[in-house]
Amino acid sequence: MGGLTVFSALSRRLPDEDLLYLGDTARLPYGTKGQETIIRYALQATEKLVERRIKLLVVACNTATAAALPVLEAAYAHLPVIGVIEPGARAACEVSRTGRILVLGTESTIRNQAYARAILALRPQARVTGIPCSLFVALAEEGWLNGPVVEETAARYLAPILALPPEDRPDCIVLGCTHFPLLAPAIRAAFPFPLDMVDSAETTARAVQNRLTASGLLNPAPRRLRRFLTTDAPDRFARVGGYFLAEPIPRESLELVTL
Amino acid sequence: MGGLTVFSALSRRLPDEDLLYLGDTARLPYGTKGQETIIRYALQATEKLVERRIKLLVVACNTATAAALPVLEAAYAHLPVIGVIEPGARAACEVSRTGRILVLGTESTIRNQAYARAILALRPQARVTGIPCSLFVALAEEGWLNGPVVEETAARYLAPILALPPEDRPDCIVLGCTHFPLLAPAIRAAFPFPLDMVDSAETTARAVQNRLTASGLLNPAPRRLRRFLTTDAPDRFARVGGYFLAEPIPRESLELVTL
Repeated sequence: MGGLTVFSALSRRLPDEDLLYLGDTARLPYGTKGQETIIRYALQATEKLVERRIKLLVVACNTATAAALPVLEAAYAHLPVIGVIEPGARAACEVSRTGRILVLGTESTIRNQAYARAILALRPQARVTGIPCSLFVALAEEGWLNGPVVEETAARYLAPILALPPEDRPDCIVLGCTHFPLLAPAIRAAFPFPLDMVDSAETTARAVQNRLTASGLLNPAPRRLRRFLTTDAPDRFARVGGYFLAEPIPRESLELVTL
Repeated sequence: MGGLTVFSALSRRLPDEDLLYLGDTARLPYGTKGQETIIRYALQATEKLVERRIKLLVVACNTATAAALPVLEAAYAHLPVIGVIEPGARAACEVSRTGRILVLGTESTIRNQAYARAILALRPQARVTGIPCSLFVALAEEGWLNGPVVEETAARYLAPILALPPEDRPDCIVLGCTHFPLLAPAIRAAFPFPLDMVDSAETTARAVQNRLTASGLLNPAPRRLRRFLTTDAPDRFARVGGYFLAEPIPRESLELVTL
């Protein structure tokens, strides 16, 4: 579901492109699964999209990017593949003054350390702290975006950061899960000190635009197709997806598929 | 994961039986999926267990019981199949004096109305209210069993019940998801009035014992085998499963399988 925050940014930035979305709702969430399982599922999803003759693949999920991006690039050598981690890491390195960067993500993304690796490759002196925040995913899907439950959840996850002396505090926070932008105001409010916030959606949309432009792949004949493939219950996808897309998903744009 | 609360009750009540557990961790949670997907997954899981020559199947998940029990019974006509809903409904009808029964479950179980149907079949005058509590699943898996997040979550889900006039209050609450017994103290504490609480674990274990005894299927040569099949990351299963089983899961009793 979270990939829809990336879809939304892509749709605004590239209105003339055809966008095809695949949400593996039957098997979500990926964030608590093991690496091999995530890789297998990502390959199945990519195969389904390649059948539909996509020209570029966005892996609009931090967990799948962390676990499967190199495998997907190797398996589809002629398809440009863009993940959400490198753009977010790059943006964090640009905005952080002190180099102390906090990454919030799923259990799998944080354990995998993909953000730390991507950030340190760009800025070797950075100090990266990662906190797994699995419940934020469930809160976003439940549509509980503010109020005491979200506040208490944020306070509990972020307690180790809030206890740091001022000189060790991060000055930049990466929302390293596509669900988390929905909770951005609540996460920001948990901090009594200012910090910059980076998410995957806008940064990835910009990377896609750059890649399409550089490769001469921009759509010459705009059709503005918006189509959503889902592996489970299209009705629930339309309802919950509305929170993430911040606009209604027309029933006729939905298609149920099996991976 | 929640099925382990049922496993635990079975293990205590039937120590001399061989117990084989299958946790479809790669595709959990089932509670937010559609009916057809749940049925497909339940058939795949049952096939795997039938290959291992089980003598009785316990569907230790309220969501799967609500969606798939009749299909499983039809598909495996010679295999005794016991779900968790009928035993819980029966216990609720026995303990409730007023017949006002509150059922907490996943989104899928509540929408399916399986508890309401089972309760009304036994006690047609009952008044059944169902509340979907999806976040309780994520809280139980995160191991957050008490404290302000759980308290606020319970308060939010239960607000409509707490606002009822005394004469309309339930006197019995059914924990209609196998995850929820972990949160039983917190759920009980949310009510300023007393009520009885029924869960699926103990009631289902009793139903299994009765069925095995009545059918002459009790193990004549006790071996006390305990074996766990999981479809994803056995390490995570062992760690999170420990919360649910309330005892460690030895690594050598775990086996990774594909459905």
